[in-house]
Amino acid sequence: MSQSVIVTDVGPRDGLQNQTRILSSEQRLQLINALSSAGVGHVEVGAFVSPKVVPAMAGTDAILQGLEGHQGEYSVLIPNMKGYELATAAGANRVVMVLYASEGMAQANVNRSREQVEEAAEQILVRALEDKVTVLIAISVAFECPFSGPVAPNTVVEIAGKFLAIGADEIVISDTIGAANPAQVRSLMAKLVEQHGSEKIACHFHDTRAMGLANVFAALESGVRKFDASIGGLGGCPFAPGASGNVATEDLVMMVEQMGFDTGIDQLKLAEATRIAGELTGNAPGGRAKTWLNRHLGLT
Amino acid sequence: MSQSVIVTDVGPRDGLQNQTRILSSEQRLQLINALSSAGVGHVEVGAFVSPKVVPAMAGTDAILQGLEGHQGEYSVLIPNMKGYELATAAGANRVVMVLYASEGMAQANVNRSREQVEEAAEQILVRALEDKVTVLIAISVAFECPFSGPVAPNTVVEIAGKFLAIGADEIVISDTIGAANPAQVRSLMAKLVEQHGSEKIACHFHDTRAMGLANVFAALESGVRKFDASIGGLGGCPFAPGASGNVATEDLVMMVEQMGFDTGIDQLKLAEATRIAGELTGNAPGGRAKTWLNRHLGLT
Repeated sequence: MSQSVIVTDVGPRDGLQNQTRILSSEQRLQLINALSSAGVGHVEVGAFVSPKVVPAMAGTDAILQGLEGHQGEYSVLIPNMKGYELATAAGANRVVMVLYASEGMAQANVNRSREQVEEAAEQILVRALEDKVTVLIAISVAFECPFSGPVAPNTVVEIAGKFLAIGADEIVISDTIGAANPAQVRSLMAKLVEQHGSEKIACHFHDTRAMGLANVFAALESGVRKFDASIGGLGGCPFAPGASGNVATEDLVMMVEQMGFDTGIDQLKLAEATRIAGELTGNAPGGRAKTWLNRHLGLT
Repeated sequence: MSQSVIVTDVGPRDGLQNQTRILSSEQRLQLINALSSAGVGHVEVGAFVSPKVVPAMAGTDAILQGLEGHQGEYSVLIPNMKGYELATAAGANRVVMVLYASEGMAQANVNRSREQVEEAAEQILVRALEDKVTVLIAISVAFECPFSGPVAPNTVVEIAGKFLAIGADEIVISDTIGAANPAQVRSLMAKLVEQHGSEKIACHFHDTRAMGLANVFAALESGVRKFDASIGGLGGCPFAPGASGNVATEDLVMMVEQMGFDTGIDQLKLAEATRIAGELTGNAPGGRAKTWLNRHLGLT
């Protein structure tokens, strides 16, 4: 029997929040449902953040409501305890919190120290454990920070170890700016999987330097079996033409399926989700393999 | 001290022969010299094939003449004994012969059986050994053939072993149609490097399914240290818009340098060669990392 790879599509959150076009709740649900129909069982569906700062994520409570009764692991991003309370009040049972592997990014993003961010996250995690809410901890800029430079692998190992010890369900190692190379990924992920097992560790890559799939392979070699990706490669900054977003879900699924892993995802239906992402946003570049993949799927 | 990776730019041959625009000898030399200036020590500079069939490669003797006295390992492709004689008469001391890992491709490309192709190549190899001419054997469609389907790894292992035993200097495992996935590459290349060492084995990947760099990393993991690539990603079929050619030299160099390998190549000067390839052909898409790379190099 082939091994499974679990893909979480973060397009409806990480992708949509970087678009100039703000989608309605109905449109966001249309995209999420297209992903679910394709067999993408894990989707990051929104965020409970300030609607003034991130208008694209306003109304995530309506998204959760619209998904009630649907089968699927739907997660939402929360920035603080208030976000946690709003999210759980809206029915969320799976939350993502973002930590920073560098001081520079913590200061730039939330104007706090790394330590302050971790203390706040720890309090929410303890609360979530009581509430039996699943907690995913994303360690951002896990390889390199645009402000502080390269990140020491041990920093990431320590943060991951600390939060797993407290009871986090999963650590998502995030190459937020797409700066990692596969040698770094191979080495860091091997250490994390050795310490904590494949169940607790996921990877999140951006394709900025075209090394997205190489990094996915490097992580697979290290035993990682859980990956974030974004439908259509959604997530490129609309103000930097050609800048790449997350690894495209369709590229990642194609590669791991061809390697013999089972994602449970129907690639033809996934292509329909890609089409919808493009139609709704006007800015989903599509995976880098799209020319070949569309021909392979009989779509051109 | 960092380990070396040797990059052979095949753009002036594999790239240019797939263009609608035919370059003059002066233009071809301009491209080759730009590569040499960037520190690309190995270049496949042309082919001694029928000028009627492949007009872009006509006059490769003038190319060799133009390179006389230049430092660099310049190879030329030869299809048969006549090509060998023309090439060596023109001063070539490094020739590339193409074999086929599938019957379907041998029949389609040269209307002969795999065995006939190998017998002819063997005769030329024996002659070249007497002449002290370096021989590179490219095994094409080494993973999958568009006519015969998947290729059994043992077929490739047998061909490589046979020609290395006779005295070939290097075997180039070529994923001609860009069909390989990194799991296949990891496994086949590990076997070949184990049997023959890193010195004798090279890889040649196309980026059709966006797995080019992932396959390069897989080969590196298996101990491969020699790679073909094509400046600007030259080589996409001009009749299939969006189809990807060889892995772009600039992407490959960027990745392996960031991994800590030494290619001896100056990335800023390489960007100038990319610019020239684009200017001359009107059809060099540039590497997939070009947006980031150009900014990184201060070119935008």
